[in-house]
Amino acid sequence: MSTRRPQRVHIREVGPRDGFQNEPEQIATEDKVRLINALGRAGLHRIEVASFVRPDVIPQLSDGVEVLSSVDVPDDVALMVLIPNSKGLDNALKVRDKFHEAAIFVSASETHNKKNVNRTIDETMADLDGVAKRITSEGIRCAAVIATSFGCPYEGRVDLERVLSLAERFAEAGASEVGFGDTTGMANPGYVSEFFSAALERLPGVEVTAHFHNTRGQGLANALAALEAGCSSFESSFGELGGCPVPPGSTGNIATEDLVSMFHEMGVETGVSLPGVIDAAREAQTVLGRKLTSHSIVAGPVEWASARS
Amino acid sequence: MSTRRPQRVHIREVGPRDGFQNEPEQIATEDKVRLINALGRAGLHRIEVASFVRPDVIPQLSDGVEVLSSVDVPDDVALMVLIPNSKGLDNALKVRDKFHEAAIFVSASETHNKKNVNRTIDETMADLDGVAKRITSEGIRCAAVIATSFGCPYEGRVDLERVLSLAERFAEAGASEVGFGDTTGMANPGYVSEFFSAALERLPGVEVTAHFHNTRGQGLANALAALEAGCSSFESSFGELGGCPVPPGSTGNIATEDLVSMFHEMGVETGVSLPGVIDAAREAQTVLGRKLTSHSIVAGPVEWASARS
Repeated sequence: MSTRRPQRVHIREVGPRDGFQNEPEQIATEDKVRLINALGRAGLHRIEVASFVRPDVIPQLSDGVEVLSSVDVPDDVALMVLIPNSKGLDNALKVRDKFHEAAIFVSASETHNKKNVNRTIDETMADLDGVAKRITSEGIRCAAVIATSFGCPYEGRVDLERVLSLAERFAEAGASEVGFGDTTGMANPGYVSEFFSAALERLPGVEVTAHFHNTRGQGLANALAALEAGCSSFESSFGELGGCPVPPGSTGNIATEDLVSMFHEMGVETGVSLPGVIDAAREAQTVLGRKLTSHSIVAGPVEWASARS
Repeated sequence: MSTRRPQRVHIREVGPRDGFQNEPEQIATEDKVRLINALGRAGLHRIEVASFVRPDVIPQLSDGVEVLSSVDVPDDVALMVLIPNSKGLDNALKVRDKFHEAAIFVSASETHNKKNVNRTIDETMADLDGVAKRITSEGIRCAAVIATSFGCPYEGRVDLERVLSLAERFAEAGASEVGFGDTTGMANPGYVSEFFSAALERLPGVEVTAHFHNTRGQGLANALAALEAGCSSFESSFGELGGCPVPPGSTGNIATEDLVSMFHEMGVETGVSLPGVIDAAREAQTVLGRKLTSHSIVAGPVEWASARS
């Protein structure tokens, strides 16, 4: 199984954007900042922290500029912001020096894209083409995200060729990285293996990122399949926060601490302190006032179990 | 990844023994019987239903004979009982016609075995050698289980050679099947891949079974790694019940419905009706009066999501 397994991977923490956005109540800015600082200190060198969407649409993230201005993370941490369209980029560029990476996104499924951003895929791509070029011309690293890459609740399986064509178009527009999102948890390890083998071959020079959900408990199995296919870039969320649960009540994103635990146990380096992430997730439990669903938050790292002898 | 992947697997449901045993309150016999019947109708053709341990030690399973006498499952369902020692076998043989498979067990870790059955591994094996021979001479299929095969909370990593030697000794004594248990959730996919490649090579003619826990969320990733190494026999528990959580509060066994969902999505046949298992797990939630932790119990099969268009 291990011929293409990378020995080191990058993990982007998406909880402060993807997670906090999906909370029913807005989290206080100072709590957000404290949690992001803890994640940065835990060695997560890529953190998605804000979104330049309309504050009336997503009030949970309306304090994005304040968060960006207040966080205090190590110098090697790249802060990412989500840019939905040209207007969002205009606003983001007003605080150009506060972040390092910008993410743009489209859904591979026409129906899902229409419901998500009220435009066709063609309309979205026409806008994002210019957005990507402006981002890169500003010297900002551009990462594109393709939602519903592994399946859509409205359309079922999404054609691989269609997904890879969108990825190539993003790369041509200047994206250094393309992330493939399992937005509603429909990926399975068999397809993931095929998918990433094809994506890595088709996108030379582009960082290929896997973003899985744990909807049916197989999130880490999908991450394993991507890893074994050669993928070395992953996104996850501390405490298993966020990920727009479909159907309601189910879990979304895979938990950063569970992903890190699996990789470390396998001998795959992440640069992340597992106890540090677990501490941040436990702090998030306190802030949110409820038990979060990650496993390692309860079980702790496997080393701790061995040390109890 | 898929060169050695089996197209069809066997799944043994262990919830009615391993799960019910770990419930703080004894479940009513009629509830147990109703749930076992539902599991049998769902296509689970191997079910562990009773344990011939001392009723004062494990009162939760003291109604084993009554359960065995009352269940009504399809003819192709093999009912398994757990036999801890010679005395347990004596008692089991009084209802010889009520079950089809008998499981015997030892821990690969000396410390864990001592704490579990208060005997050394050598003492346990000396007794089980005779037990296995009596089981097979009665025409009953004998399955041996080796606990802490992938690590022990007291001793850390357990030597692979020691585990495989125990397995060979069981096979010589007549076991048709040897199960390797990740008793406290310390397996990782890299080691699992090596482990099952070695076990399958070393145990020709013996059914090699994987029993994983989801302690740190990677239970299905471990199952995937075993599958890709050629393993075609698995144990799991509906509703994610049981599995003797270590540390306290963490989850134990992988959930049958999550395992079945992953395999079916990959095109691996199980013979199991996923909606049937989910219904049984939801019924268990009602019986136990609490929310269970499997994912598919909330999310449902992936086909349902696709059908909502």
